[in-house]
Amino acid sequence: MKPNLQQIIEFCHSNTIIDTLGITVNPCNDSIYLELLIEERHTNFCDICHGGVLTTMADTAMGIVCNAQNKSVVTMSLSIDFIKPVLLKTKIVAVPKIIHNGRQTMVCECDIVDDNKKLYAKVHATFFVIGKFIKTE
Amino acid sequence: MKPNLQQIIEFCHSNTIIDTLGITVNPCNDSIYLELLIEERHTNFCDICHGGVLTTMADTAMGIVCNAQNKSVVTMSLSIDFIKPVLLKTKIVAVPKIIHNGRQTMVCECDIVDDNKKLYAKVHATFFVIGKFIKTE
Amino acid sequence: MKPNLQQIIEFCHSNTIIDTLGITVNPCNDSIYLELLIEERHTNFCDICHGGVLTTMADTAMGIVCNAQNKSVVTMSLSIDFIKPVLLKTKIVAVPKIIHNGRQTMVCECDIVDDNKKLYAKVHATFFVIGKFIKTE
Amino acid sequence: MKPNLQQIIEFCHSNTIIDTLGITVNPCNDSIYLELLIEERHTNFCDICHGGVLTTMADTAMGIVCNAQNKSVVTMSLSIDFIKPVLLKTKIVAVPKIIHNGRQTMVCECDIVDDNKKLYAKVHATFFVIGKFIKTE
Repeated sequence: MKPNLQQIIEFCHSNTIIDTLGITVNPCNDSIYLELLIEERHTNFCDICHGGVLTTMADTAMGIVCNAQNKSVVTMSLSIDFIKPVLLKTKIVAVPKIIHNGRQTMVCECDIVDDNKKLYAKVHATFFVIGKFIKTE
Repeated sequence: MKPNLQQIIEFCHSNTIIDTLGITVNPCNDSIYLELLIEERHTNFCDICHGGVLTTMADTAMGIVCNAQNKSVVTMSLSIDFIKPVLLKTKIVAVPKIIHNGRQTMVCECDIVDDNKKLYAKVHATFFVIGKFIKTE
Repeated sequence: MKPNLQQIIEFCHSNTIIDTLGITVNPCNDSIYLELLIEERHTNFCDICHGGVLTTMADTAMGIVCNAQNKSVVTMSLSIDFIKPVLLKTKIVAVPKIIHNGRQTMVCECDIVDDNKKLYAKVHATFFVIGKFIKTE
Repeated sequence: MKPNLQQIIEFCHSNTIIDTLGITVNPCNDSIYLELLIEERHTNFCDICHGGVLTTMADTAMGIVCNAQNKSVVTMSLSIDFIKPVLLKTKIVAVPKIIHNGRQTMVCECDIVDDNKKLYAKVHATFFVIGKFIKTE
């Protein structure tokens, strides 16, 4: 049994930081994408999106693909390489991928790209599986 | 010549994400500390502070100690190990440290701790030096 | 102007650690692959290849793809996620990829796989460009 | 019950890579230090010790401090920041430290320094606890 898209979307919004930052949660073709239009409130100096915002998006997006495997996870370690600055008004999307789907741990990566697939940052993380995403089965 | 505390504090607030998240910038003994009281808007599920918020604090705090050396920097790569969940209502502070102060690159680390020095996350990052922090000298 | 395969192969062997560990350097279709058959001397306890050996292969393989772009590089930071243990007698190959080809910095990733493309470890690293690979042009 | 130094030293040498690279295992004041005199066989180009050798030392040294807590561990993820090149004939030592001593996971860091405490590289890693180090208690 796996959770449906609606269950995961609701869970995303229970991550209140998602709404605090104005990250949108979009279902598309059986998947869910996190998107963000960079506004002034997301920036550091020079009108560049703060790296912490990209990390927040990526961490959440990777958590979602774990959830879609019916696994509830916590992040153990995460690393991010910043490749290009994300300028004000850019719309970015987080594209996560499962690298290892283990019983006790998972490894994921996530690209932060724009609509033209230009790569801005690449993230890798290890997750600890704390149980099933859907408890009542 | 090095920047004074007031110049750095002003710069911190030009990182609008700091104010978006409600992170406070406190001068203390010739240093500057970033502090945050975890509220609901910072959390993910289970009333735990989202890892992206901790990363944002740490990245900014490490940037500040680079600035205090009169260097303007951008983050190249950052990694974070999550040690304990930061629960709602906890007050955390980011404690950065310079590991390597090079001409072209800097390496820093940052502890995320509470008032009792309990360690919640440990971050390390490499920075690229793009110029002097105070341009008009 | 770019270096030819023979120049890069010779450079690889000037990395004496490659020969110390018995890593083979194989040209194939305009690329170069680093391969290793895990012997007892590469292992830690339980007949599993030591993670440091995988890191050595990956770091060198990523350096090679930078060199092929006529860039001489040094590694600034590297991180590795271990996915499956590499058992004694397994033959592994390092598959590097350039993520960002900048003037001053490069970002690469590298998969450690076996002949069946099974993934054992995933590495990513940032490199500092110290000059051209072929000095006499 | 905790393992004694002699049990850990023996275990170190069952990591055959340690002997392959000529890393020495020295007990000192209830602790164990891994030391290495950089020879030509450890180098890459320009007579600099290969980063993979430093990673191997650090990974093993961190494993040892976990073992000393009577925990048998495997490395899940590791990241290393390279700070200064380690030149031929330098004698380096790995200084590990436990950051988090959990039931299922551990987080450690490790400095690579010389006799004058000069820092060459800093490593962080997460470990998965697979059982007790001493099985027959």
